[in-house]
Amino acid sequence: MTQRAYNFAAGPATLPETVLEQVQREMMALPGPKASILEISHRSPTFKEIIEAAEKNIRTLLGISDDYSVLFLQGGGRLLFSMIPMNLLTESQPSADYILTGSWGKAAIKEAKKLGSMNVAWDGADDKYTYTPSDTDLKLDPNAAYVHYTCNETIEGVQFAAEPQAGQVPLVCDASSDFMHKPLPIDRYGMIYACAQKNMGPAGVSIVVVRKNLLERSSDELGSYLDFKLHADQGSLMNTAPTFAIYVVRLVTDWLLNDIGGLDKMYSINQAKAKMLYDTIDSSNGFYDGHARKDSRSLMNVSFRLPSEELTTQFIDQADAADLTALAGHRSVGGVRASIYNAMPVAGVEALRDFMIDFRDKHAK
Amino acid sequence: MTQRAYNFAAGPATLPETVLEQVQREMMALPGPKASILEISHRSPTFKEIIEAAEKNIRTLLGISDDYSVLFLQGGGRLLFSMIPMNLLTESQPSADYILTGSWGKAAIKEAKKLGSMNVAWDGADDKYTYTPSDTDLKLDPNAAYVHYTCNETIEGVQFAAEPQAGQVPLVCDASSDFMHKPLPIDRYGMIYACAQKNMGPAGVSIVVVRKNLLERSSDELGSYLDFKLHADQGSLMNTAPTFAIYVVRLVTDWLLNDIGGLDKMYSINQAKAKMLYDTIDSSNGFYDGHARKDSRSLMNVSFRLPSEELTTQFIDQADAADLTALAGHRSVGGVRASIYNAMPVAGVEALRDFMIDFRDKHAK
Repeated sequence: MTQRAYNFAAGPATLPETVLEQVQREMMALPGPKASILEISHRSPTFKEIIEAAEKNIRTLLGISDDYSVLFLQGGGRLLFSMIPMNLLTESQPSADYILTGSWGKAAIKEAKKLGSMNVAWDGADDKYTYTPSDTDLKLDPNAAYVHYTCNETIEGVQFAAEPQAGQVPLVCDASSDFMHKPLPIDRYGMIYACAQKNMGPAGVSIVVVRKNLLERSSDELGSYLDFKLHADQGSLMNTAPTFAIYVVRLVTDWLLNDIGGLDKMYSINQAKAKMLYDTIDSSNGFYDGHARKDSRSLMNVSFRLPSEELTTQFIDQADAADLTALAGHRSVGGVRASIYNAMPVAGVEALRDFMIDFRDKHAK
Repeated sequence: MTQRAYNFAAGPATLPETVLEQVQREMMALPGPKASILEISHRSPTFKEIIEAAEKNIRTLLGISDDYSVLFLQGGGRLLFSMIPMNLLTESQPSADYILTGSWGKAAIKEAKKLGSMNVAWDGADDKYTYTPSDTDLKLDPNAAYVHYTCNETIEGVQFAAEPQAGQVPLVCDASSDFMHKPLPIDRYGMIYACAQKNMGPAGVSIVVVRKNLLERSSDELGSYLDFKLHADQGSLMNTAPTFAIYVVRLVTDWLLNDIGGLDKMYSINQAKAKMLYDTIDSSNGFYDGHARKDSRSLMNVSFRLPSEELTTQFIDQADAADLTALAGHRSVGGVRASIYNAMPVAGVEALRDFMIDFRDKHAK
């Protein structure tokens, strides 16, 4: 048996071990087609069953009604940052609102601005993106085509506790780094999207949940791959889908449903895991300094600093030697970041907590 | 050991068994990061080594000089059909030439026409896309931004024996279904691209080889993911790359280099495999009717018809029962199609040949 570390990478990120074991077991051939999942047609009955099961799992877990399409797309968040304004801006609504709570929100508006004048409804830059706004902070445009926000900022570790109030304007949410970590009131969203490589599967597929009436905005002049409506009309099989990534999403959602028991249970586990680390930070007498304000702390990405660069490096290196890996903060902000997505076992978080206590005992003055 | 069939699917398609075995062996954890290839960061040293090795293998196999960038992108051919005119048309050269030898060329020009007036340099529709044009047949525009063609039409089984002459205009080639099946004079191309799922790996990544001076045409106004130049500047790591698909491309190109011994040897094997099937067709007294004209026959996709729909169905069903699978022609043309890409073993083609002879003996009048 190959040794596995507790992997705190921000994404691609750790996956359930039972899912990896099933992928390994089935790699040479699926029983029906007697060929590997890597080798079968996206239009084969076997793959059709896989993509339909993945979609059904997602609909079941989140309670998504038939008013919404569920799409599986390539190109990651970055391509969606362009596709969203391409599809959702209209002649009479040529602008959208963006709420900026961190690096990914900024990346999203950068792409949108190439397609129209965007309105910054709120920007947390002055406070170094340490918290999420209250609804009264938002300067919303009632004629906006949509309101875009990032429910969890992976780099800063800042997460919305609930959806912002956008009135009648469709709410569009980048949920890349916390999708499926808790139940959601899907009816509040016009669109919610996530790349798979945090909570759902490997890199190479994004999941888009979009209210069907918004698809009417897509123009026939768009390139086919850039057109949400065409993807929806063709069940995400306009062209060759990323079959393997969708197969893993199916297995991960099977695990969420059957092994975990649904998103209510997943949410309880995630709350308990995050509490362990934040309690350790809060009881460290300032040795560990959390980035986010307490009311905006992320359950997925726990970002904190140590008293010096030297201690930060020691912390990351010694943790790595103890098989607690990938703890370096994002290159743009430094520090330490522990990403504890759905698939990070409680035992992994306990091991990190114990390491943190031990490291502080040795190094705090 | 799970039983594997000989899988003649057009793509996703059969992969080398030794590659699948390595993927299976390494699935739970790569030794360095002690995490699965599905779980490691696209910016980790381990993945950096993988993507660099994949690129180096491709450069070595095709003899690609530093005048060209090699990119790994998502979205398949369909997204590239839009990205090519977005990046390569210019204000002074707002039109391009398209040579249409089958279904994929038609799909490519459909997307390009959304972005400008395109010139059809040749169209084989009147002869049902059964052959490739000679250079004198082409009606090229000397001011075209580029000349686009499809070197192998997967559906019709029609393949160019050599590059068309495009003079000083950059040649852009969709090589999705025959990339790496033989050595290529890369200097003849402005750009050559291929989705991986025929000859190179699983679905979910496309390989683009583009002459660096063409990247100067990309406008800053393009969405970042749609901009070839940004991808090149950032070594295909602008955003999270499809890490698993690139890992498999690395293993497949390792196999081409080390197990096969390079593209000259691969080409000889491919010629021998195709000859077996075409000889069987030609010696069948018309029982098997090849779609393509003899001088335009594809080495990758052998498309043919039987005397009746009933016999076609019997052929496909009985072959499937004999573990010769996925032989149905594309839904748009019907008949039989045997896709015999690099990874299809000679033994698989021999088994199909024997089946074809036996089936004809039983059913020919």
